[in-house]
Amino acid sequence: MQSLEIARPPGRPRCDATRTSVLAAAYDLLAEGGLSRFTIEGVAVRSGVARSTIYRWWPSKGSLAMEGFLQATAADLALPASDSVVADLQATLRLFARLVRGRAGRIIRCIIAEGQGDPETIEAFLTGFVKPRRAEVRAVIARGIASGELRRDLDVEITCSSLFGPLYLRMLLNEGVDDTWVDRLSGFVLAGCLSGAG
Amino acid sequence: MQSLEIARPPGRPRCDATRTSVLAAAYDLLAEGGLSRFTIEGVAVRSGVARSTIYRWWPSKGSLAMEGFLQATAADLALPASDSVVADLQATLRLFARLVRGRAGRIIRCIIAEGQGDPETIEAFLTGFVKPRRAEVRAVIARGIASGELRRDLDVEITCSSLFGPLYLRMLLNEGVDDTWVDRLSGFVLAGCLSGAG
Repeated sequence: MQSLEIARPPGRPRCDATRTSVLAAAYDLLAEGGLSRFTIEGVAVRSGVARSTIYRWWPSKGSLAMEGFLQATAADLALPASDSVVADLQATLRLFARLVRGRAGRIIRCIIAEGQGDPETIEAFLTGFVKPRRAEVRAVIARGIASGELRRDLDVEITCSSLFGPLYLRMLLNEGVDDTWVDRLSGFVLAGCLSGAG
Repeated sequence: MQSLEIARPPGRPRCDATRTSVLAAAYDLLAEGGLSRFTIEGVAVRSGVARSTIYRWWPSKGSLAMEGFLQATAADLALPASDSVVADLQATLRLFARLVRGRAGRIIRCIIAEGQGDPETIEAFLTGFVKPRRAEVRAVIARGIASGELRRDLDVEITCSSLFGPLYLRMLLNEGVDDTWVDRLSGFVLAGCLSGAG
Protein backbone atom coordinates (compact mmCIF):
# COMPACT_ATOMS: atom_id res chain seq x y z
CA MET A 1 0.00 0.00 0.00
CA GLN A 2 1.39 3.35 -0.94
CA SER A 3 1.91 6.04 1.68
CA LEU A 4 -0.50 8.94 1.62
CA GLU A 5 1.84 11.18 3.58
CA ILE A 6 1.92 14.55 1.90
CA ALA A 7 5.15 16.49 1.40
CA ARG A 8 5.67 19.15 4.06
CA PRO A 9 8.33 21.68 4.94
CA PRO A 10 11.35 20.20 6.77
CA GLY A 11 11.75 20.96 10.47
CA ARG A 12 8.04 20.95 11.16
CA PRO A 13 7.19 17.32 11.95
CA ARG A 14 3.57 16.53 12.64
CA CYS A 15 2.65 14.67 15.78
CA ASP A 16 1.17 11.47 14.39
CA ALA A 17 -1.51 11.04 17.05
CA THR A 18 -2.70 14.62 16.64
CA ARG A 19 -2.66 14.31 12.87
CA THR A 20 -4.67 11.10 13.02
CA SER A 21 -7.32 12.59 15.28
CA VAL A 22 -7.66 15.72 13.13
CA LEU A 23 -8.09 13.61 9.99
CA ALA A 24 -10.58 11.28 11.69
CA ALA A 25 -12.62 14.28 12.85
CA ALA A 26 -12.47 15.71 9.34
CA TYR A 27 -13.83 12.48 7.88
CA ASP A 28 -16.63 12.29 10.47
CA LEU A 29 -17.72 15.84 9.68
CA LEU A 30 -17.60 15.17 5.95
CA ALA A 31 -19.73 12.06 6.36
CA GLU A 32 -22.28 13.95 8.41
CA GLY A 33 -22.73 17.14 6.44
CA GLY A 34 -20.81 16.94 3.18
CA LEU A 35 -18.41 19.62 2.02
CA SER A 36 -20.87 22.50 2.25
CA ARG A 37 -21.08 22.27 6.04
CA PHE A 38 -17.43 21.33 6.53
CA THR A 39 -15.35 23.91 8.43
CA ILE A 40 -11.92 23.95 10.03
CA GLU A 41 -13.59 25.35 13.14
CA GLY A 42 -15.81 22.25 13.25
CA VAL A 43 -12.80 19.95 12.93
CA ALA A 44 -11.03 21.85 15.72
CA VAL A 45 -13.99 21.42 18.08
CA ARG A 46 -14.44 17.76 17.19
CA SER A 47 -10.78 16.79 17.46
CA GLY A 48 -9.86 19.02 20.40
CA VAL A 49 -6.89 20.31 18.40
CA ALA A 50 -6.30 24.08 18.26
CA ARG A 51 -7.49 25.78 15.09
CA SER A 52 -4.11 27.49 14.70
CA THR A 53 -2.41 24.08 14.69
CA ILE A 54 -4.77 22.77 12.04
CA TYR A 55 -4.24 25.85 9.87
CA ARG A 56 -0.47 25.42 10.17
CA TRP A 57 -0.69 21.88 8.78
CA TRP A 58 -3.45 22.23 6.20
CA PRO A 59 -3.54 25.36 4.06
CA SER A 60 -7.29 25.17 3.28
CA LYS A 61 -10.44 23.38 4.32
CA GLY A 62 -10.45 21.64 0.96
CA SER A 63 -7.02 20.10 1.48
CA LEU A 64 -7.99 18.97 4.99
CA ALA A 65 -11.27 17.45 3.82
CA MET A 66 -9.59 15.61 0.97
CA GLU A 67 -6.77 14.26 3.15
CA GLY A 68 -9.32 13.12 5.73
CA PHE A 69 -11.22 11.31 3.02
CA LEU A 70 -8.06 9.71 1.59
CA GLN A 71 -6.76 8.66 5.01
CA ALA A 72 -10.07 6.98 5.89
CA THR A 73 -10.45 5.15 2.59
CA ALA A 74 -6.84 4.23 1.76
CA ALA A 75 -6.80 0.97 3.74
CA ASP A 76 -10.08 -0.16 2.15
CA LEU A 77 -8.73 0.48 -1.32
CA ALA A 78 -5.33 -1.21 -1.02
CA LEU A 79 -4.83 -2.86 -4.40
CA PRO A 80 -4.55 -6.64 -4.46
CA ALA A 81 -1.55 -8.10 -6.30
CA SER A 82 -2.01 -11.74 -7.29
CA ASP A 83 -0.67 -13.68 -10.26
CA SER A 84 -3.70 -12.66 -12.32
CA VAL A 85 -4.18 -9.05 -13.30
CA VAL A 86 -7.76 -9.80 -14.32
CA ALA A 87 -8.50 -11.17 -10.85
CA ASP A 88 -6.80 -8.14 -9.31
CA LEU A 89 -8.92 -5.73 -11.36
CA GLN A 90 -12.12 -7.60 -10.50
CA ALA A 91 -11.18 -7.48 -6.83
CA THR A 92 -10.32 -3.77 -7.11
CA LEU A 93 -13.73 -3.00 -8.57
CA ARG A 94 -15.42 -4.99 -5.80
CA LEU A 95 -13.45 -3.09 -3.14
CA PHE A 96 -14.46 0.20 -4.67
CA ALA A 97 -18.11 -0.88 -4.87
CA ARG A 98 -18.06 -1.87 -1.19
CA LEU A 99 -16.61 1.53 -0.30
CA VAL A 100 -19.27 3.23 -2.44
CA ARG A 101 -22.07 1.37 -0.62
CA GLY A 102 -20.93 2.83 2.70
CA ARG A 103 -20.08 6.18 4.24
CA ALA A 104 -17.43 7.01 1.66
CA GLY A 105 -20.03 6.64 -1.08
CA ARG A 106 -22.22 9.25 0.54
CA ILE A 107 -19.22 11.58 0.73
CA ILE A 108 -18.33 11.02 -2.93
CA ARG A 109 -21.94 11.79 -3.88
CA CYS A 110 -21.85 15.03 -1.86
CA ILE A 111 -18.55 16.05 -3.44
CA ILE A 112 -19.83 15.42 -6.98
CA ALA A 113 -23.14 17.17 -6.24
CA GLU A 114 -21.48 20.23 -4.73
CA GLY A 115 -18.87 20.20 -7.46
CA GLN A 116 -21.44 20.77 -10.21
CA GLY A 117 -21.67 24.39 -9.06
CA ASP A 118 -18.03 24.68 -7.97
CA PRO A 119 -15.24 23.57 -10.33
CA GLU A 120 -12.60 23.82 -7.57
CA THR A 121 -14.32 21.07 -5.61
CA ILE A 122 -14.22 18.80 -8.66
CA GLU A 123 -10.59 19.71 -9.25
CA ALA A 124 -9.69 18.81 -5.66
CA PHE A 125 -11.56 15.50 -5.95
CA LEU A 126 -9.83 14.71 -9.26
CA THR A 127 -6.38 15.61 -7.98
CA GLY A 128 -6.76 14.13 -4.50
CA PHE A 129 -8.71 10.96 -5.22
CA VAL A 130 -9.65 10.10 -8.81
CA LYS A 131 -6.30 10.62 -10.54
CA PRO A 132 -4.16 8.80 -7.92
CA ARG A 133 -6.62 5.89 -8.02
CA ARG A 134 -6.52 5.84 -11.81
CA ALA A 135 -2.72 5.82 -11.74
CA GLU A 136 -2.79 2.76 -9.48
CA VAL A 137 -5.25 0.91 -11.70
CA ARG A 138 -3.27 1.84 -14.81
CA ALA A 139 -0.16 0.39 -13.18
CA VAL A 140 -2.00 -2.89 -12.64
CA ILE A 141 -3.13 -2.91 -16.28
CA ALA A 142 0.44 -2.16 -17.40
CA ARG A 143 1.62 -5.16 -15.37
CA GLY A 144 -0.92 -7.31 -17.22
CA ILE A 145 0.27 -6.02 -20.58
CA ALA A 146 3.90 -6.66 -19.62
CA SER A 147 3.12 -10.22 -18.53
CA GLY A 148 1.16 -10.95 -21.70
CA GLU A 149 -2.13 -11.49 -19.87
CA LEU A 150 -3.64 -8.37 -21.48
CA ARG A 151 -3.42 -7.31 -25.10
CA ARG A 152 -0.57 -5.00 -26.09
CA ASP A 153 -2.75 -2.53 -28.00
CA LEU A 154 -5.09 -1.92 -25.05
CA ASP A 155 -6.40 1.65 -24.54
CA VAL A 156 -5.50 1.83 -20.85
CA GLU A 157 -7.29 5.09 -20.10
CA ILE A 158 -10.53 3.94 -21.71
CA THR A 159 -10.31 0.59 -19.93
CA CYS A 160 -10.14 2.45 -16.61
CA SER A 161 -13.11 4.64 -17.56
CA SER A 162 -15.15 1.61 -18.64
CA LEU A 163 -14.52 -0.12 -15.32
CA PHE A 164 -15.30 2.80 -13.03
CA GLY A 165 -17.62 5.14 -15.00
CA PRO A 166 -20.65 2.80 -15.01
CA LEU A 167 -20.18 2.15 -11.30
CA TYR A 168 -20.16 5.86 -10.44
CA LEU A 169 -23.26 6.44 -12.57
CA ARG A 170 -25.24 3.63 -10.93
CA MET A 171 -24.30 5.03 -7.52
CA LEU A 172 -25.44 8.54 -8.50
CA LEU A 173 -28.73 7.23 -9.94
CA ASN A 174 -29.50 5.13 -6.82
CA GLU A 175 -29.45 1.92 -8.81
CA GLY A 176 -27.21 -0.01 -6.43
CA VAL A 177 -23.79 -1.54 -7.01
CA ASP A 178 -24.02 -5.06 -5.60
CA ASP A 179 -21.24 -7.56 -6.23
CA THR A 180 -23.23 -9.49 -8.84
CA TRP A 181 -23.62 -6.38 -10.98
CA VAL A 182 -19.99 -5.37 -10.40
CA ASP A 183 -18.77 -8.79 -11.53
CA ARG A 184 -20.92 -8.60 -14.67
CA LEU A 185 -19.35 -5.22 -15.46
CA SER A 186 -15.75 -6.28 -14.87
CA GLY A 187 -16.36 -9.56 -16.72
CA PHE A 188 -17.67 -7.70 -19.75
CA VAL A 189 -14.94 -5.05 -19.84
CA LEU A 190 -12.02 -7.36 -19.09
CA ALA A 191 -13.07 -10.03 -21.61
CA GLY A 192 -12.22 -7.51 -24.33
CA CYS A 193 -8.83 -6.79 -22.75
CA LEU A 194 -7.36 -10.29 -22.83
CA SER A 195 -4.56 -11.22 -25.17
CA GLY A 196 -6.14 -12.83 -28.20
CA ALA A 197 -9.46 -10.97 -27.81
CA GLY A 198 -10.80 -8.79 -30.61
CA MET B 1 -38.57 9.00 -33.98
CA GLN B 2 -41.01 8.03 -31.30
CA SER B 3 -43.66 10.44 -30.14
CA LEU B 4 -43.19 11.93 -26.69
CA GLU B 5 -46.88 12.77 -26.40
CA ILE B 6 -48.07 11.70 -22.99
CA ALA B 7 -51.41 9.93 -22.49
CA ARG B 8 -54.14 12.34 -21.40
CA PRO B 9 -57.82 12.09 -20.61
CA PRO B 10 -60.08 12.05 -23.68
CA GLY B 11 -62.13 15.16 -24.40
CA ARG B 12 -59.46 17.56 -23.19
CA PRO B 13 -57.23 18.22 -26.20
CA ARG B 14 -54.24 20.45 -25.66
CA CYS B 15 -53.68 23.37 -27.92
CA ASP B 16 -50.41 22.46 -29.59
CA ALA B 17 -49.07 26.00 -29.80
CA THR B 18 -49.79 26.66 -26.12
CA ARG B 19 -48.29 23.34 -25.12
CA THR B 20 -45.16 24.06 -27.15
CA SER B 21 -44.67 27.48 -25.59
CA VAL B 22 -45.17 26.14 -22.05
CA LEU B 23 -42.60 23.38 -22.63
CA ALA B 24 -40.14 25.79 -24.24
CA ALA B 25 -40.48 28.15 -21.26
CA ALA B 26 -39.99 25.21 -18.90
CA TYR B 27 -36.78 24.22 -20.66
CA ASP B 28 -35.45 27.79 -20.61
CA LEU B 29 -36.10 28.08 -16.88
CA LEU B 30 -34.45 24.72 -16.24
CA ALA B 31 -31.39 25.75 -18.22
CA GLU B 32 -31.10 29.01 -16.31
CA GLY B 33 -31.64 27.91 -12.72
CA GLY B 34 -31.80 24.12 -12.53
CA LEU B 35 -34.57 22.26 -10.77
CA SER B 36 -34.17 24.01 -7.44
CA ARG B 37 -35.30 27.36 -8.84
CA PHE B 38 -37.87 25.88 -11.21
CA THR B 39 -41.52 26.81 -10.46
CA ILE B 40 -44.82 26.53 -12.29
CA GLU B 41 -45.36 30.20 -11.51
CA GLY B 42 -42.11 31.01 -13.33
CA VAL B 43 -43.19 28.98 -16.36
CA ALA B 44 -46.58 30.77 -16.37
CA VAL B 45 -44.92 34.18 -16.39
CA ARG B 46 -42.41 33.18 -19.05
CA SER B 47 -44.89 31.54 -21.40
CA GLY B 48 -47.80 33.89 -20.84
CA VAL B 49 -50.04 30.88 -20.20
CA ALA B 50 -52.34 30.92 -17.17
CA ARG B 51 -51.09 28.95 -14.16
CA SER B 52 -54.45 27.18 -13.90
CA THR B 53 -54.07 25.93 -17.48
CA ILE B 54 -50.57 24.62 -16.77
CA TYR B 55 -51.73 22.89 -13.60
CA ARG B 56 -54.56 21.24 -15.54
CA TRP B 57 -52.10 19.74 -18.03
CA TRP B 58 -49.17 18.89 -15.76
CA PRO B 59 -49.85 17.48 -12.31
CA SER B 60 -46.54 18.59 -10.75
CA LYS B 61 -43.57 20.82 -11.41
CA GLY B 62 -41.42 17.69 -11.77
CA SER B 63 -43.53 16.29 -14.59
CA LEU B 64 -43.52 19.65 -16.38
CA ALA B 65 -39.76 20.06 -16.01
CA MET B 66 -39.08 16.55 -17.28
CA GLU B 67 -41.43 16.90 -20.27
CA GLY B 68 -39.84 20.25 -21.14
CA PHE B 69 -36.43 18.61 -21.05
CA LEU B 70 -37.56 15.64 -23.14
CA GLN B 71 -39.34 17.83 -25.69
CA ALA B 72 -36.24 19.99 -26.16
CA THR B 73 -33.80 17.10 -26.47
CA ALA B 74 -35.87 14.51 -28.38
CA ALA B 75 -35.03 15.77 -31.86
CA ASP B 76 -31.31 15.88 -31.02
CA LEU B 77 -31.38 12.30 -29.82
CA ALA B 78 -33.31 10.67 -32.67
CA LEU B 79 -31.60 7.31 -33.12
CA PRO B 80 -29.93 6.67 -36.46
CA ALA B 81 -30.86 3.42 -38.21
CA SER B 82 -28.32 2.33 -40.82
CA ASP B 83 -27.29 -1.13 -41.98
CA SER B 84 -24.65 -1.28 -39.25
CA VAL B 85 -25.68 -1.42 -35.61
CA VAL B 86 -22.12 -0.64 -34.56
CA ALA B 87 -22.18 2.53 -36.67
CA ASP B 88 -25.59 3.41 -35.22
CA LEU B 89 -24.36 2.99 -31.64
CA GLN B 90 -21.25 5.07 -32.32
CA ALA B 91 -23.44 7.79 -33.84
CA THR B 92 -25.83 7.58 -30.88
CA LEU B 93 -23.01 8.11 -28.42
CA ARG B 94 -21.73 11.07 -30.44
CA LEU B 95 -25.21 12.63 -30.47
CA PHE B 96 -25.48 12.21 -26.72
CA ALA B 97 -22.02 13.72 -26.20
CA ARG B 98 -22.96 16.72 -28.32
CA LEU B 99 -26.10 17.19 -26.25
CA VAL B 100 -24.05 16.89 -23.06
CA ARG B 101 -21.64 19.60 -24.22
CA GLY B 102 -24.53 22.07 -24.51
CA ARG B 103 -27.41 23.39 -22.46
CA ALA B 104 -28.93 19.95 -21.89
CA GLY B 105 -25.67 18.84 -20.29
CA ARG B 106 -25.87 21.66 -17.76
CA ILE B 107 -29.43 20.62 -16.95
CA ILE B 108 -28.47 16.97 -16.53
CA ARG B 109 -25.66 18.04 -14.16
CA CYS B 110 -28.11 20.12 -12.12
CA ILE B 111 -30.59 17.26 -11.94
CA ILE B 112 -27.95 14.77 -10.79
CA ALA B 113 -26.50 17.27 -8.28
CA GLU B 114 -29.89 18.13 -6.79
CA GLY B 115 -30.89 14.48 -6.85
CA GLN B 116 -28.11 13.46 -4.46
CA GLY B 117 -30.16 15.00 -1.66
CA ASP B 118 -33.56 14.17 -3.15
CA PRO B 119 -34.30 10.62 -4.37
CA GLU B 120 -37.54 11.73 -6.09
CA THR B 121 -35.57 13.92 -8.48
CA ILE B 122 -33.37 10.97 -9.42
CA GLU B 123 -36.44 8.77 -9.83
CA ALA B 124 -38.06 11.32 -12.17
CA PHE B 125 -34.85 11.59 -14.20
CA LEU B 126 -34.57 7.79 -14.41
CA THR B 127 -38.20 7.29 -15.38
CA GLY B 128 -38.48 10.29 -17.70
CA PHE B 129 -35.11 10.25 -19.44
CA VAL B 130 -32.60 7.51 -18.61
CA LYS B 131 -34.82 4.43 -18.86
CA PRO B 132 -36.58 5.42 -22.11
CA ARG B 133 -33.17 6.19 -23.64
CA ARG B 134 -31.81 2.87 -22.44
CA ALA B 135 -34.80 1.04 -23.92
CA GLU B 136 -34.08 2.65 -27.30
CA VAL B 137 -30.40 1.72 -27.18
CA ARG B 138 -31.23 -1.83 -26.09
CA ALA B 139 -33.57 -2.14 -29.06
CA VAL B 140 -30.69 -1.16 -31.36
CA ILE B 141 -28.44 -3.74 -29.71
CA ALA B 142 -31.18 -6.38 -30.03
CA ARG B 143 -31.38 -5.58 -33.74
CA GLY B 144 -27.62 -6.19 -34.00
CA ILE B 145 -27.93 -9.53 -32.20
CA ALA B 146 -30.82 -10.57 -34.45
CA SER B 147 -28.86 -9.69 -37.59
CA GLY B 148 -25.77 -11.55 -36.40
CA GLU B 149 -23.63 -8.41 -36.24
CA LEU B 150 -23.36 -8.65 -32.44
CA ARG B 151 -22.69 -11.75 -30.37
CA ARG B 152 -25.68 -13.72 -29.13
CA ASP B 153 -24.49 -13.98 -25.53
CA LEU B 154 -24.08 -10.20 -25.10
CA ASP B 155 -25.00 -8.69 -21.73
CA VAL B 156 -27.19 -5.93 -23.18
CA GLU B 157 -27.68 -3.99 -19.94
CA ILE B 158 -23.97 -3.92 -19.16
CA THR B 159 -23.16 -2.93 -22.74
CA CYS B 160 -25.47 0.08 -22.32
CA SER B 161 -23.85 1.00 -18.99
CA SER B 162 -20.37 0.71 -20.46
CA LEU B 163 -21.25 3.04 -23.32
CA PHE B 164 -22.95 5.76 -21.29
CA GLY B 165 -21.54 5.51 -17.74
CA PRO B 166 -18.02 6.70 -18.60
CA LEU B 167 -19.47 9.59 -20.61
CA TYR B 168 -21.65 10.77 -17.72
CA LEU B 169 -18.69 10.53 -15.32
CA ARG B 170 -16.39 12.58 -17.53
CA MET B 171 -19.10 15.22 -17.86
CA LEU B 172 -19.58 15.37 -14.08
CA LEU B 173 -15.82 15.60 -13.47
CA ASN B 174 -15.35 18.40 -16.04
CA GLU B 175 -13.03 16.26 -18.16
CA GLY B 176 -14.74 16.96 -21.46
CA VAL B 177 -16.43 14.60 -23.88
CA ASP B 178 -15.05 15.47 -27.30
CA ASP B 179 -15.76 13.25 -30.30
CA THR B 180 -12.26 11.76 -30.30
CA TRP B 181 -12.67 10.49 -26.75
CA VAL B 182 -16.24 9.32 -27.45
CA ASP B 183 -15.07 7.33 -30.48
CA ARG B 184 -12.30 5.71 -28.43
CA LEU B 185 -14.90 4.68 -25.84
CA SER B 186 -17.42 3.27 -28.31
CA GLY B 187 -14.63 1.57 -30.28
CA PHE B 188 -13.36 -0.15 -27.14
CA VAL B 189 -16.78 -1.25 -25.86
CA LEU B 190 -18.20 -2.34 -29.21
CA ALA B 191 -15.11 -4.31 -30.26
CA GLY B 192 -16.00 -6.77 -27.50
CA CYS B 193 -19.61 -6.99 -28.67
CA LEU B 194 -19.00 -8.22 -32.21
CA SER B 195 -19.86 -11.73 -33.29
CA GLY B 196 -16.68 -13.75 -33.04
CA ALA B 197 -15.12 -11.51 -30.33
CA GLY B 198 -14.11 -12.98 -27.00
